[in-house]
Amino acid sequence: MKSFTELLVEKAQESKSIVCMGIDPVVKRIPLKEQSSEKKIVKFFSEIIEAAVSNNSVPVAVKPNYAFFAQNGFSGLRALKKVIVIAKSHKIPVILDAKRGDIGSSSEAYAREAFGFWKADAVTVSPYMGIDSIEPFLRYCSKGKGVYLLVRTSNKGASDFQDLSAEGKKVYMHVAGKLLDSHIEGLGAVAGATSPGELAEISSFFANSGKQVPLLIPGVGTQGGLANEVADVLRRNGSLAMHRINSSSSINYAYEKQQTDDFAGAAIRAIKEINSEIGEI
Amino acid sequence: MKSFTELLVEKAQESKSIVCMGIDPVVKRIPLKEQSSEKKIVKFFSEIIEAAVSNNSVPVAVKPNYAFFAQNGFSGLRALKKVIVIAKSHKIPVILDAKRGDIGSSSEAYAREAFGFWKADAVTVSPYMGIDSIEPFLRYCSKGKGVYLLVRTSNKGASDFQDLSAEGKKVYMHVAGKLLDSHIEGLGAVAGATSPGELAEISSFFANSGKQVPLLIPGVGTQGGLANEVADVLRRNGSLAMHRINSSSSINYAYEKQQTDDFAGAAIRAIKEINSEIGEI
Repeated sequence: MKSFTELLVEKAQESKSIVCMGIDPVVKRIPLKEQSSEKKIVKFFSEIIEAAVSNNSVPVAVKPNYAFFAQNGFSGLRALKKVIVIAKSHKIPVILDAKRGDIGSSSEAYAREAFGFWKADAVTVSPYMGIDSIEPFLRYCSKGKGVYLLVRTSNKGASDFQDLSAEGKKVYMHVAGKLLDSHIEGLGAVAGATSPGELAEISSFFANSGKQVPLLIPGVGTQGGLANEVADVLRRNGSLAMHRINSSSSINYAYEKQQTDDFAGAAIRAIKEINSEIGEI
Repeated sequence: MKSFTELLVEKAQESKSIVCMGIDPVVKRIPLKEQSSEKKIVKFFSEIIEAAVSNNSVPVAVKPNYAFFAQNGFSGLRALKKVIVIAKSHKIPVILDAKRGDIGSSSEAYAREAFGFWKADAVTVSPYMGIDSIEPFLRYCSKGKGVYLLVRTSNKGASDFQDLSAEGKKVYMHVAGKLLDSHIEGLGAVAGATSPGELAEISSFFANSGKQVPLLIPGVGTQGGLANEVADVLRRNGSLAMHRINSSSSINYAYEKQQTDDFAGAAIRAIKEINSEIGEI
């Protein structure tokens, strides 16, 4: 069976892209007249995905953000299910951004939720509770699933605990180290685009280990990270193909900045722009 | 408006108890013939809650574990909604154990999910992404809601990152410190019963600050924590009333150990047993 990492590489080579489109539904920013939140969200994102597919600028992963769906209650959760089905029908890898993590039996249940119920291809998990809290997710890697462990996040407060110096290195480098200790194919890391120094450190640390650790890099676009800078960092440490650079609202709501009603066209232009900033894969 | 901390104290004084009943639905352990998972879960836990209420040994909080519901998909999520409604109809505080945490706008959405959609009275949140990732939850404290930040968890892997020595103290004490810096009424902490030494350190640290930090203490029962030991620790640092000692599966599935079909009666006996181990409030 193909591993999640192999799937990432294959998709990137096929489409010459490593752009992941985050899916952050904000109902009031969706310019559609559908009655329910569910219908608005599903129509908006399925039009973007389908336009991208027929335009040959398909994102090579989508990252639905659980929070943005769940804030709309059952209506949002039903929309999440449908958006995942649509993405998968086009063979786009789905990374469920849910930042799960709990003690063993609860993490087992979260893993069943992510992979069994939502049918995500990969899920983001949080390291605070320790490696035993992510092991239940890792058991799915042999079935072609992926797991992204938060290492260094893209928000300002990331420095509060992740950047503490502990026993000779930063806490996030302890997380990176433990990640390598438990590494199996399909286990990747989240490292934000907003801190290129830390990203470079993490990227070269993994590259030097000789292990394949796909990076999921959020923070490009609205949060201020620069795709070309990120691509340069990745390029210094090997091939880009297994990594993903994510942008969410600057793709989703590109129509606002581009002052057009054609939200799908605007999203595609935004994806293409990031592709060209990244350059050759 | 009553703060969440005041609600906790009031309930404890009313019922002479600080036991929180975790709600961890495992469908195959529910001895009921209902067809759907949803109906099984709802009937099982509503019978336990209602028997407890009429028996005057009502838990003074319930802690539904999101993972255990979500693993059953929409059926489980509908059950979660109903179980919360039932608990609230008996005025039992509901702590949604979801360990949420993300960057600002996503945490805002998670806070809307927990308080706006699920109508929980409190939610557990994870600190790895920093204090800005929990601020959106704290805005609800002035509306009577509670937030429990993970400080030291009850699992073995807690030592991986929480116990690292960083700049003069353990990482979990950095979390405890930042919690105090941002403290407002309604903000509490999770500290596991399985590490009495760390629990004592955290408990006295908060007590010495003069601030009211309600502790949510999981790990009693199946995980091996001892209620009397925990109560002794809390008693040394002030009144017990704002704190909660949680036990989940050893209450939920007490009927298995007690070898009876009367699962509600067995759960009540298990609650009473923990109450008597804790002693006077």
